Amino acid sequence: MTKQLNVAVVGATGAVGTKMMEKLIERNFPIKSIKFLASARSAGNPIEFNGTTYKIEEATPESFEGVDVALFSAGGSVSAALAPEAAARGAVVIDNTSHFRMDPEVPLVVPEVNRHALKTIPKGIIANPNCSTIQMVAALQPLREKFGLTKVVVSTYQAVSGSGIAAIDELKAQSQNWEAGKNVEANVLPVKSDVKHFPIARNVIPQIDKFTDNGYTYEEMKMINETKKIMELPELHVAATCVRVPVVSGHSESVYIELEQEATVQDIFAALQGAPGIVVQDDITNQTYPMPLFAENEDPTYVGRIRQDLDNKKGFHLWIVADNLLKGAALNSIQIAEAMLEDNLL
Amino acid sequence: MTKQLNVAVVGATGAVGTKMMEKLIERNFPIKSIKFLASARSAGNPIEFNGTTYKIEEATPESFEGVDVALFSAGGSVSAALAPEAAARGAVVIDNTSHFRMDPEVPLVVPEVNRHALKTIPKGIIANPNCSTIQMVAALQPLREKFGLTKVVVSTYQAVSGSGIAAIDELKAQSQNWEAGKNVEANVLPVKSDVKHFPIARNVIPQIDKFTDNGYTYEEMKMINETKKIMELPELHVAATCVRVPVVSGHSESVYIELEQEATVQDIFAALQGAPGIVVQDDITNQTYPMPLFAENEDPTYVGRIRQDLDNKKGFHLWIVADNLLKGAALNSIQIAEAMLEDNLL
Repeated sequence: MTKQLNVAVVGATGAVGTKMMEKLIERNFPIKSIKFLASARSAGNPIEFNGTTYKIEEATPESFEGVDVALFSAGGSVSAALAPEAAARGAVVIDNTSHFRMDPEVPLVVPEVNRHALKTIPKGIIANPNCSTIQMVAALQPLREKFGLTKVVVSTYQAVSGSGIAAIDELKAQSQNWEAGKNVEANVLPVKSDVKHFPIARNVIPQIDKFTDNGYTYEEMKMINETKKIMELPELHVAATCVRVPVVSGHSESVYIELEQEATVQDIFAALQGAPGIVVQDDITNQTYPMPLFAENEDPTYVGRIRQDLDNKKGFHLWIVADNLLKGAALNSIQIAEAMLEDNLL
Repeated sequence: MTKQLNVAVVGATGAVGTKMMEKLIERNFPIKSIKFLASARSAGNPIEFNGTTYKIEEATPESFEGVDVALFSAGGSVSAALAPEAAARGAVVIDNTSHFRMDPEVPLVVPEVNRHALKTIPKGIIANPNCSTIQMVAALQPLREKFGLTKVVVSTYQAVSGSGIAAIDELKAQSQNWEAGKNVEANVLPVKSDVKHFPIARNVIPQIDKFTDNGYTYEEMKMINETKKIMELPELHVAATCVRVPVVSGHSESVYIELEQEATVQDIFAALQGAPGIVVQDDITNQTYPMPLFAENEDPTYVGRIRQDLDNKKGFHLWIVADNLLKGAALNSIQIAEAMLEDNLL
């Protein structure tokens, strides 16, 4: 990759934005120039990137003149307003918010699964999927390719960093107050803008994002709808129950799947071992299985606890863990840009 | 209930034993006499019960002479050795360990589900089921009665108190060390007697109890086998993934079920509301759903997040929470004794 790109990062100081900057440096992304954009409130503040101090600029439509790739991670309303402006100025937008994900003219991409969808970007915008969806489809794709896939039932164990830096701070403050015997306050989780807030320390909360009219949360509906779109399986049966747990970073998922064809546990191991982005951690005689504490700051999607269902030879149970800020967000966004460069689409 | 009973508690100082004593007092269990039995190591130590100080006695076969009800919660090996001795001396044994649960001559009882099984106790021993199994079958029984039940897929979020007081202490010590920036040590979880130990603070561990040869843990196989036995549905499809989370007390379960007949969400609500031992906590417009932090020290099994599967009209998703030391252990044991008294079986 010798082409050098003009990059804009929108929302660089957030939990995901920070990781995007780390990954741009670590992966030696070919940067000709980089700018950091935010609201007027943050404009003027300094920001460190690869040993140089930059000044955060106010994000306006004109900010995107001359930009090749714009990485958005500043909330849905910012993307709604500015992503089309950036695209209109010729930038390829890779948007980490949910705003455009289900737009039929916006590809929703996990490169290991549907890299080909990057060839057609009618709006100049590519959506980065929901964090819990990305790691699941990355692990399911190799199985779907070999054995077909008809049904997915997932229960998640999601880290607080998926709700941003304020949620991480809240978990830490609650833990400290618990240990000090003080009152535990809750102001952020499950959803900052919702009415009630509950402690996450020493608790689990079966609500991520607000509720939709059908009784599922938006997070659950994202997993259901985005999985079908990314895998291009509109008839796939998908169900999700999304739960927040007191973990800083690293989403875990207990996933039950049904395949089109019968398979053995050995078949599943063989299909997953060596699959792109996947690391099989499954050696029960040595108590080896994925755990979020050990997946934090790691790139792969880890799969373990692989078991055949005891009643259905086409049924399997998997335990899938990945760092939600990396493969679930920042890393996947950068991988989208890298794939486009490799495929001469940028 | 006017009959007064001679009671023995084996393992009174453990996490479950302590709760058994609390429930005996709170529920005004008709006690004529009570004795507290333990290993020789603990014998002679004082123990408080209902304002009186007792001396812990060494548990021997002869300890059970004259005992009407013996509540065992001191580990499988103690039950294996002494429960038959107690029964031989005429005591009804209610055993909280897993040792006798799958013995075809030992009823495995959740009174709301299979109270009738208390009528036949050929060995004088009744087994109290696994904690995560009890709350699940209590919630599924009213649905099974009305609509039939064909399939259960459960993923658990289990509290550390299920591993005893040492695990509670370990979670607290790890949390304190995290917050103080010190090293986090792990010596108890996932299984004290297993080779490796992992931190549970800020982590989730997909291993509860040791692994069996088929890749499932003993905890998962307990949920599978005990559910079939208690519900008397040997052909029921049951699958379980059991996971430890950093919660002190209160097991949560994400449960997918398939019924024999089609039903609506309203049907499910109606079947669960007013069912014995069940409290429906499900009002998503007010963010009302069960959480373990709020179920601690409470008797009911809470059910919420009731949703119909989007692809299968016979499929439903439930979120079930109960205090694993109460309904999952101590309370259910006492309820077994109370049911036998009411039914003139004691």
